[in-house]
This record gives sequence, structure tokens and C-alpha cells, in this order.
Amino acid sequence: MAKIADQYLLIHPWKIIEDGFHPDHSEVSESLFSLANEHQGVRGYFEEGYSGNQLIGVYLNGIYEEKFTESTSYKGISNRLAFMVNTVNWLYTRIELDGETLDLAKSKFTSFSRELDFRSGEYKREFVWETASGKKLRLVFLRLLSMEHKELACQQIRLTPLNFSGKVNLTSGLDFSVPHRMYGQNFWNCPRRAPGMLLGISQSIHQRLFAGMKVKGSTPISALEDEKFTAIHFEVDVQNNQESVIEKTVILQSDRNPQQSLEKAWEKGMTLLQTTDQHYAEVLEANKVYWAAFWAKSDITIEGDPENQQGIRFCIFQMQQTYRGVVPGANIGAKGLTGEAYNGNAFWDTETYCLPFYLFSNPEAAKSLIEFRYKTLPQAMTRAKDLDCAGACFPVATSDGTESCTLWQHASLQFQTTTAVAYAIWHYVIITGDTDFLRSKGIELLVQICRFLASRGQWSAKGKFGFYAVMGPDEFQMMVNNNAYTNYMAKRTFEYTLQVLEGADLSAVGCSPSEISEWCHMAEEMYIPYDPQTGLYEQHEGFFNLPHIDVDSIPMEDFPLYSHWSYDRIYRNDMIKQPDVLMFMFLYNQSFSQAEKLVNYLYYEPRCIHESSLSPSVHSILAEELGRYQEAFDFFRFATRIDLDNYNRNSAEGIHTTSIAAAWMNIVYGFGGMRSDGEVLSISPSIPLQWKSYRFQIVYRGSVIKVEVDKSKVSIQVIEGPVVQLKIFGKLYKLDQRGISVKI
Amino acid sequence: MAKIADQYLLIHPWKIIEDGFHPDHSEVSESLFSLANEHQGVRGYFEEGYSGNQLIGVYLNGIYEEKFTESTSYKGISNRLAFMVNTVNWLYTRIELDGETLDLAKSKFTSFSRELDFRSGEYKREFVWETASGKKLRLVFLRLLSMEHKELACQQIRLTPLNFSGKVNLTSGLDFSVPHRMYGQNFWNCPRRAPGMLLGISQSIHQRLFAGMKVKGSTPISALEDEKFTAIHFEVDVQNNQESVIEKTVILQSDRNPQQSLEKAWEKGMTLLQTTDQHYAEVLEANKVYWAAFWAKSDITIEGDPENQQGIRFCIFQMQQTYRGVVPGANIGAKGLTGEAYNGNAFWDTETYCLPFYLFSNPEAAKSLIEFRYKTLPQAMTRAKDLDCAGACFPVATSDGTESCTLWQHASLQFQTTTAVAYAIWHYVIITGDTDFLRSKGIELLVQICRFLASRGQWSAKGKFGFYAVMGPDEFQMMVNNNAYTNYMAKRTFEYTLQVLEGADLSAVGCSPSEISEWCHMAEEMYIPYDPQTGLYEQHEGFFNLPHIDVDSIPMEDFPLYSHWSYDRIYRNDMIKQPDVLMFMFLYNQSFSQAEKLVNYLYYEPRCIHESSLSPSVHSILAEELGRYQEAFDFFRFATRIDLDNYNRNSAEGIHTTSIAAAWMNIVYGFGGMRSDGEVLSISPSIPLQWKSYRFQIVYRGSVIKVEVDKSKVSIQVIEGPVVQLKIFGKLYKLDQRGISVKI
Repeated sequence: MAKIADQYLLIHPWKIIEDGFHPDHSEVSESLFSLANEHQGVRGYFEEGYSGNQLIGVYLNGIYEEKFTESTSYKGISNRLAFMVNTVNWLYTRIELDGETLDLAKSKFTSFSRELDFRSGEYKREFVWETASGKKLRLVFLRLLSMEHKELACQQIRLTPLNFSGKVNLTSGLDFSVPHRMYGQNFWNCPRRAPGMLLGISQSIHQRLFAGMKVKGSTPISALEDEKFTAIHFEVDVQNNQESVIEKTVILQSDRNPQQSLEKAWEKGMTLLQTTDQHYAEVLEANKVYWAAFWAKSDITIEGDPENQQGIRFCIFQMQQTYRGVVPGANIGAKGLTGEAYNGNAFWDTETYCLPFYLFSNPEAAKSLIEFRYKTLPQAMTRAKDLDCAGACFPVATSDGTESCTLWQHASLQFQTTTAVAYAIWHYVIITGDTDFLRSKGIELLVQICRFLASRGQWSAKGKFGFYAVMGPDEFQMMVNNNAYTNYMAKRTFEYTLQVLEGADLSAVGCSPSEISEWCHMAEEMYIPYDPQTGLYEQHEGFFNLPHIDVDSIPMEDFPLYSHWSYDRIYRNDMIKQPDVLMFMFLYNQSFSQAEKLVNYLYYEPRCIHESSLSPSVHSILAEELGRYQEAFDFFRFATRIDLDNYNRNSAEGIHTTSIAAAWMNIVYGFGGMRSDGEVLSISPSIPLQWKSYRFQIVYRGSVIKVEVDKSKVSIQVIEGPVVQLKIFGKLYKLDQRGISVKI
Repeated sequence: MAKIADQYLLIHPWKIIEDGFHPDHSEVSESLFSLANEHQGVRGYFEEGYSGNQLIGVYLNGIYEEKFTESTSYKGISNRLAFMVNTVNWLYTRIELDGETLDLAKSKFTSFSRELDFRSGEYKREFVWETASGKKLRLVFLRLLSMEHKELACQQIRLTPLNFSGKVNLTSGLDFSVPHRMYGQNFWNCPRRAPGMLLGISQSIHQRLFAGMKVKGSTPISALEDEKFTAIHFEVDVQNNQESVIEKTVILQSDRNPQQSLEKAWEKGMTLLQTTDQHYAEVLEANKVYWAAFWAKSDITIEGDPENQQGIRFCIFQMQQTYRGVVPGANIGAKGLTGEAYNGNAFWDTETYCLPFYLFSNPEAAKSLIEFRYKTLPQAMTRAKDLDCAGACFPVATSDGTESCTLWQHASLQFQTTTAVAYAIWHYVIITGDTDFLRSKGIELLVQICRFLASRGQWSAKGKFGFYAVMGPDEFQMMVNNNAYTNYMAKRTFEYTLQVLEGADLSAVGCSPSEISEWCHMAEEMYIPYDPQTGLYEQHEGFFNLPHIDVDSIPMEDFPLYSHWSYDRIYRNDMIKQPDVLMFMFLYNQSFSQAEKLVNYLYYEPRCIHESSLSPSVHSILAEELGRYQEAFDFFRFATRIDLDNYNRNSAEGIHTTSIAAAWMNIVYGFGGMRSDGEVLSISPSIPLQWKSYRFQIVYRGSVIKVEVDKSKVSIQVIEGPVVQLKIFGKLYKLDQRGISVKI
């Protein structure tokens, strides 16, 4: 996996810092310096206007639009694309001095730096502007999203003249006319408007978004208005070597209900704007308190590896910004709230890669993710019908529960979301013990999922059950039969459901005994392609007979293959994009022996080109377990700094949420050796050669557990909460606040 | 195969006749009553205007437009659609009497009948119009396309008042504003116009089409003009019980060259129009002479089966109308020149299904079809590059040699056109002995085809060569490995090419010895999935393990499956749309034993749902060979009358050119037992129970051979030309004009 770092930010344990402006990386920086609080997100763009490359992106969780692609006449092929839509540029600012408008693509400036602090969520940018007329003005731009009041966003601009006194023209506004870049158009109308306030209505879904601002620090001169725009113009009196401060407080209040009356939407926003009177400094203070509490519970420290220390904290910070379970019905987009790529849709990544982070830091948030699927069960049942099946088929990509992937070969053939929902229920329940959820919503989901699987699968001539014409998670093998991942996950789904249904009142859940015995038979006779001679699972029937390609022989300039190879060429050989077999060996880790894992790792790893950012972490975790430490570390490094080092050269489009979630797993599951796929949590840490020590914390059964690993030992301790049982290196311990140390 | 006839035309050995108007079938009739002369085609629509369902369709061979579908970012996925474009309504007529405009959807009329005569290509329609004012006017509409002067089209209208004398208003025009129905728009501009003349330029390809008319029989009153329209208005003086005749002579002269100057295109058309002075009766006479000569060479007679007698003559007549080798660069669209379906594109059907008819009636026309591929070799080489391959890949669907199939799963995975071109060369050369063609163009095509196959195929781990991620002709198994048809055809293509190259000057054809030895190795090690225990060829690797579906259990209302089933559902089982294995057993018939054919027929026939109209004929021919006479006859009946009985309920879209070509094969190869896949032509006839006798004629090695079969014997005789050698029931004969009779 020859990925090359493209590093331009400074290393710091708690910050990302850009020292001097890197215009070639300006959109990458926009992604990296993004702020979010789950409700809203804003890219790190230059608010004063910038004529260079720029994606002014402000996204709200659950605010999406829809688009219909050219229709095909075939049933089950979805032609509706839902996408998280770009909203209002609430940071809109223009600054003019001596008739010159500030624009870092054109203006002369020095001493540029910017940083984002993970301990406050504050993004600060500063530089000295030198006008053509010779004036020097020091500018500091600060912004914050409140973690406490999710609708609240703050901006502060500090102006300090270094060689003059006079007037600076400053315009501060709200702009709903920003285009959605990917579709080259703006999707908003503003039926109500007042100075400093706009009510936006999205054009296809008709969701409401109120944006209102208060600007303090100078006297307004005039108001500006346009169809989708409102602003106030100031002449700021600045005195030489004195700092003037302009503060803008913004409310972004969304209402997803397209039936909501405009009057009411407007009033709710207005009221919130009027009653919000925090100053920037207060919001900053509150944010610091919030993040301190968070880090106390969820920090990971690494001694002896500043790059990965920064990397993993960036990952954790971004995870928490993206999703934390405070917005009802929220999910996690593939780019979080930092860009338009993947249309802001959620994938199976949520259950498979992101869920563990929340399970072990914020179980309520984890539960809300599963509840997203419960709420969208009706859409999943409609989708199953579209595919001529029963039960519920969960979408490959979605914003609102409907299938939003318009490539039929993915949407109609991939079922990993559906089995991932069942896996998530199981995982959530064994970790939290929340059987109430299981008995209420979980069981209903499981039954509908099994119904789908039973109707989509088929019996072979040889009397084995399996799935035909499918695509596994590995998207480089398109339409195959008996994909090992699909079949194995379906088998486990049937088995778990049957176990849950044991002794349950079948009529209450609407199951017939014959249905149960059918599922039982399907689970027993599920075909998992396997060669007992070699111990190899076959990724799908016929995989072992495919022509072999040496993936290392593919020239670097051919990557990404989707952009350089004929589309079908990808499917002509035994190359894989991500490892289906290793994936289920990770998910049900303790069901497989070390020997089985090793032989399969050795076979599949060299065939994997990791064109998916989901792939390296799973390899890293298994490599560590198999004692292949250097490989494990290399894969880890890639996942942890995928965005900071722009490994895939596409971080400009937004951060790789799944990969950063997986980076967390890399430390906790990989080096920490945690295994959560059993009745008892188990930990078997090792430590990378490069590190002196590392520490992580997890929330488990109501306790916060600290795990510290150094070269000689692991120390595990409950730092908050009751005694918990867990296995360390396979041995069962009762753990309390005194802690335990075990040699490694 | 439960297909049900929908018969409403009368049976006649040389005509199709509609007695009384069937408005529910009006568009089916338009297709069936189509006229064509290869250069131009016109549907049997009502020229006087009709407010019921109507597709005014006038198509010219090689006159097409292009359209780009929503682009995908993947290489090798074609997003350009070329389509034969609807052109000018040259039959435009309006008739008014006492202020009432004739419209068979609204007017009162009696004694309607129409017929199309295969011996003249004349289409005649007549009825008596009764106006609201009580007048009765007998109308006869005649039309003809000249087989001699391909640009010439004629219309005649006869008016006979039955109870009055007076004036009938008649308008006769040329109308370029007709929309192309499938894309709901008109694709023409008319930069030059004069009374009775228009020069059309197609909007995307910019081909030129001159349309000019002369109308005789009455005195013009006024001219009408519009942007894309020209017409002349007449007041026809009609006398009670006397026939008045209006004659319209039209020139449709096309110029495919988009660079052609408008001036020149106009002049060429004008000149042709001015110098054309034939009357309708003269053109009719010439057409009768043409068709008499044609039938003398190419007729098939059946005694004892009037329905199929009519059916097969209709098929032969339509084949000859559609294509006869007089228009340079012409090919055969899936609907001929009778409708817009399949975009008028040519498919592998040309080489595989249509070519034999021409090989045995008009070898020069057969050669022209192969030359179409030769002319489009550059496009096929570009296409191969798009697919990351070498050599030439011929398109699945095409108007101009570029790939015009925008469904990637077909365009990128199906290679039956490419191997069909090689097969066609081989077939043409063994039948005609035209080694000049082989040595000039054939060899160049073969080399580029082999290059493509060598680069697209791959070596398996087991050291066998084959094709991965492909779709065979059977489109119900989408992305498979080692499709038996693809592999077998590739093997034979390599073998034939190597045989042709034997002793040739390799450097002259640009081949290296290592390339030759590579092809040799590939041919030898080609993997043809086969089970020696059962004698079954496996359609592709893994086919035998697919879940079985009883195709007879699928409810009738589910058909066509593409419209009623979830798209991917079609691919989940062992159902096939058409028989790949039986197909290559038909093409290389003498390479397989009867026993092999039988076991494979018995296995694949029950799995085939014949959703392709290509399928029944191949089954019929093999069934006859295997002594399964009733099955053979049932399949034959379907192919022969597919349009006359509207079996697929879609003849309104145009005739099924491939199926009607296959109907000819059904008689000649099926009942006639002709085999042309060997060095010597071989004939082993049988006769269906229902028939008294039948007779067909073929052109072979410069001779016309008549084959007559009755219940007891086959009589074969050269009726024109030199002595020929052929096998009858496996025994070699020298055949001359005295003929031979053999007992059957």
C-alpha cells in the first residue's frame, strides 16, 4: 500500500496549525479546519471572500435535497438521489480599506497562521494585511460553534492598525445564495426576510431553515438586502495599535418538517435569536468545559509519537463534532458535515466502523444510531418490495431512509447495510446489556431483516442456502454468488434472531413457527465457501479460479483505478478493494482461530489494493493480533492521519469519517487488543515499537475504564463507576478503582 | 413457450390484407404495411392525417442523430446514443369536402380494406367516405418505393364521387417537422426551401436530406410554406362516378457527409427531381419486374400450410426491403426501416442471423455487410482502447461503428459482435470461396479481432485461458466467468485466424511470430466448461450450481420480465433468455455429435424463456435435427409469423428483422437440413407432418439450386448456373440441371 503523505501542517498534541498560507492546499485546509457540533457544520473557508479555490460550505444535519437522475425503466433501480444540501453562509464578511477589498488571493499579507484547538473547538486565523496605500492592519478571525446550544454559532473579528488610525469598511451578512457545488446550483428560496434575518426553504424537500444574526462592536451605517441575502454595513473606527472587536452571534434553527407553517418557523427562530445573549468569550468558555469533560472520558494519549498523537486526537475530535447523539434522527455522513462528497449520505460504515467509538464513549448516542434505522424501517420495507423481496432491506446510501445510491449495481446487489443493522443491535446489546431496547425495537428490526434475507437468498441444487447475484462489501467483485461475507453475516443474523426469539411470544412479533424453522434451516445450511485443505475461506464461489494480478505491479499513476481503468477491467481478476473475509473475521473475531486468521490474512492481504479507506484498519487490527507488528503500524498510521496527510489526495472534498472512526478502533482493538464480540469484554494489549506508552479510556457498563500500556505492562483501572468484569490476556478479572497491572 | 397469436389479417399467399379497419391494431398495421427499398422506408400510416394512434415514420438508411446520456465518470462507459432519426413525411396529404376534413378516427366511412403485395411492393388502401353532408367519396391511396431508383417514392390518390359532382380540397406536402417519437422532439432544420422542395439538415450530425415533390392531376391553387414544411393546395374537380387521379412523385436524396455544401446538396436533389419523370404506373411495372426476378431466385413455397406460406413470404419480402446491398455502408437495424425501437441500431444479429439469407441469395450484399465492419474498424479499435484492450472490439449496438449501447453492463461485457464478425468472414469465405476478400480485408479484421480477444482474455490459476467478467449472448446471466459461448467462439476465431495466417507473410499483416504462438497457446488452452460425465457444456463456470427456477411456474402476467421483475431478480437463478450453448452448437453444427446436441438441448431448452426473439429459431433447427418434430414446428411457427400474429405484442414498434431472418433459416437449415459450416454444403431435409411439400431456392457458388421436398423424397436441381458439389444426407453429389431425387 504505497500511500504517500502530503504533510504541511505543524505537529501539536492538541491542535492543527498552518504556519504561513498554503494556497495549493486551501480546500484541504477548509476540510481540516471544519467546525461542527452535530447540528451544524462549517468548512474552514475564508469568510471575507476569496477569489482562489474555495468551497463555502455550511451543512446542517438532516437538511437535504433530492434530485432525480435520468430514469431507467427497470424496477428496483433507484433514480432518486438525496443529498445534504449546502445552506447559508453565516460568516459572510467583506472588509475594505482605502478602496481596496481584502482578498487573500490578491491582497498583500504577512504573518499568516491559523489553528484549530481540540480543547475548545475554536478556529483562529490571523495575518497582517498591507494595503496598496501602505497601511498595515492586523486581522484575527475567530469562530466557534456552541456545543451547548447547538443552533448557536459565533464569529469574532479583531482589527488592529499597525501604522494608521482611520475607518475600515466592514460588511457582515447572511447569504443563502451559495451554490451547492456538486450540482452547480442553489437550492434555496427565502420567502421571509428582515434586516439580519432570513427564512430559507429548500426547493425540493421544503425544509425550513431560519438564519438570524446580531452583530456588535460598531455602529451600523446601512443595511443591504437581496433576494437571499441580508447584511449590515459598518464603518469601524480603528485607532493605531488598538484592537477593535466585531462580534457576530448567529442562530441557525432548522425545521425538517415541510408542513411547518412559515409563520411558526420564523417565530421560533426569532425568539431563539432574541433570547440568545451570550458573548463570544462565554461560548468559548462553555466549549472549553464541554471538551474538557469529553477528553477526560475519551482521550487517547501516545507517548513517543507526536504525529500519531495529533492524528488520533484529530480523529476523536472530528468524530465528536460530527455526531454525539443530541440531534434526533441524525446519522453520520461519509464526510461528516465537512463537504458534499458522497452527498452527505450515511452508509453501512455507521454500524460497522463508527458505532464502536460511541458504544465505548457514549452508549446513548450509539443507541440513537440504531434508532435511526428503526425510524426508517418503513422505507426499508418499501425498498425490499422494490427488490421483489419481503421484510426490510436497508439502503446502501441514505439521508432519509430511502435508497439514495443510483448505481444499481451497488444499490440492488449489496446487503451489508442490512446485516450491519442486525450486527449493531447484537453488538449494542452485548456491550450495554440494554435488553429493553432489544425486546422493543431490536426484535422488530431483526425479524424484518431475517425476512428479507430469507426471501433474497436461495437454495442451490446441492441443498445449500446462499445469496446469488450479489456484491459483497468488496466492490471490486461485482455480481457474484455466495459471497462469503454476505452469507456468513446472514447466517449469524439468523442465529442471533433465533436466539432472541427463543421463548419469546412469536405471535407478538408476528412470526409463524414455520418461518422460524425455515430460518433455522437456512442458518444451518448456509453455504460458506471454505477449503478445508488450506483453511481458506473463498471470498465467493469461483474466486480462487480468478486470474491473478500482482497488485504491486500496477503503476502508481493508475490510481485511483476507478478514474484510470476501464470500468469493467476492475472486475476481471482476483484483486480486491477491501477484505470481505478478513472483515467478518474482525467482526466475529473470537469465532475464528489464530491459525485461520493467519492463513486468510496471508492470502487476502496481498490481493487488496485498499482503494476503500475502510480497508487499512481491519488489516491493522488483524496484523497486530497475528504478531505482524510493522504491517499493523503502517496500516494504522495511514488511517490515523488519512486527512492530516491527505493520503488519498481527496481530503479537499471533506474528511474521511469512517477512516477516522476506524483509527480509534486501530488503537483500542488493534494495539489495545480489545475484543467486544463476546459476552465478556476482553483486552490483550501490545505496544508498537515506536511508542513509549499509550493510554485510552472506554465507557463500559456504566464505568469509565482507563487502560495504560507501556513497554512492560498494561495497567487497567476503573476511574469512575462500579466494578466491572473483563478478561485481560484471556483471564477473567473483576476490575475496580484500585486497578490491575499485568505484564505484557 | 406460451406465446399466443393475435391474428387479424387475412391469409393470402402473396399479400397481407386487412379487411375492415382495426383501429386497436393501427400501429401494428403501420409496421406490417411498411414499405422500404433499403435506401428509405415508410411506415403504413394514414397520409391524410389521423387523430388516433399513429407513428408517422419515414427513415433513411444511415441517417442518424446522436444524443448524450447523463455522463458517468467511468472510463469505457459509453454515453453516446446514435439513433436512426425520423425524417420527412413525404406523404403529407389533407382532404376536405364540404368543410369536413377526412380523418378516419372521426369521419364516417365504409368498405375499408388495405393490402400489401409482395410481388410489387405496392401498398393500397381504399374506403368510401361519407361526409356529414351526405356525400359519398370513394378513395384509393396507393404508394410505392422504387426498387430501381432508390431515391424515388410515389403516391397516388384516386377519388371517385359516388353521389355527387363538385370540388374536393386537397393539400399535398412535405413535412420535416415530424417529431422523433422516442425522444419527443424534431431533429431537423431546413436552411433551404422552395415551393415543393426542402433541404433538411439534422441537428447534431448535420447530415443533409433533400426532399422534393411533383404533384400532377389537378391545377394548383396556392402554395403553403412553413419553417420545415412545404405544400400545394388543389381544388380537385370531381365528376360523379368518375375517377380523378392525383399523383405525387417524391425524391428523397440523402447526403451523409456533414461537410457537403448546402448548395451542392440542394442542386443534386433538384437535378434528380427534375430529371425524374416516371409515372406511378411505370414505377409499379418496374417494381413488378424486380420482384418477379427476386422471387424466381429466392422464393420459398409451402404446400398445405397457407398461414406459414404467407408468413415466410412476408419475412423474405421484408428482408429484401430492409437490406439488399445497394446502399454503400448500409447495415440492418433491429427493426429494419419500420420503427424507432432499438434506435435503428445494428447488432450481432446482422452476422449471426441475417447474413445466411444473403449468403444464399445475394453474396455481394453479404459481403457489403462484412465491409461495414471493415469500414468501421477504426471505431472498433478506439472502442478496444476504451476498454483497456488491444485490437478491435465491435460494438453491441451501432449506427456508425461507434458503440451506441449506453447500458455499460451490455456494452462493456458482451463480445458476441466481435466474434460474430470473425464467424461471418469464415462463413462468407467457405460459402463463396472469395479468398480475395479474405486476403485483403478479412485478414486485417481477423488479426485485430484476435488481438482484442488475446488482450481481453486471461489465464486462470490453473493455466487455462478464458474470459472473465463477461456477458454471453444470454443476457440473463450478467457478469460471469468463462461463458461457454464467448470462450468457444474465441477459440474458433483464433484457430481460423491461425489457419488463414499459415504461410502468409506475417510482416505484411503486422503480426509477430510471438503473437502467433501466443494465440496458438490460447486456442489450445481455451477453457470450455464441460462435464464429461453428462456431456453437458456449462453455460459458464458455476452455472450448474445456480438455484433452479421452473420457468413454467412464472405467471404469464410477469412477462416481459424486464418490465415486471426487479432488475436484479432476473440474474439470481438458472433461467436463460436465449441458449448460449445451443447457439454455438448451431453455428458450428458439424463439430458436435447428435448425442451431445441432444443432451444439451434437453438440459437448456426447459431453462430458456425466449424473452429474446432470437431464441426460438435456434431451438427449432436443433429440435428438427434431433427428431423432435412437433417442438421444431411450434418454434418455427412463432418465428415465421412473429409480426403477422404480433406474438410479442410489440410489432407496433416495428418488425422483428432478426426473427424474420431466422424464420428463413428455420426452413432452409431446420426442415431443409442445410448445413453450411463445412467445406461442402450439406442438405438433409425432413418435412413437417402438416405440410404436403415445400420448396426453397438458394444461390450457391454461382448457381441457383432448387430444393423440393415432399412426403417421400427430396428433389434437388441446379436451375441456373454450373455444376455444384454438395452432400445430400451425408453423401456427396455432383449436381446439375438434370437434378437428383433422394428418398427421405
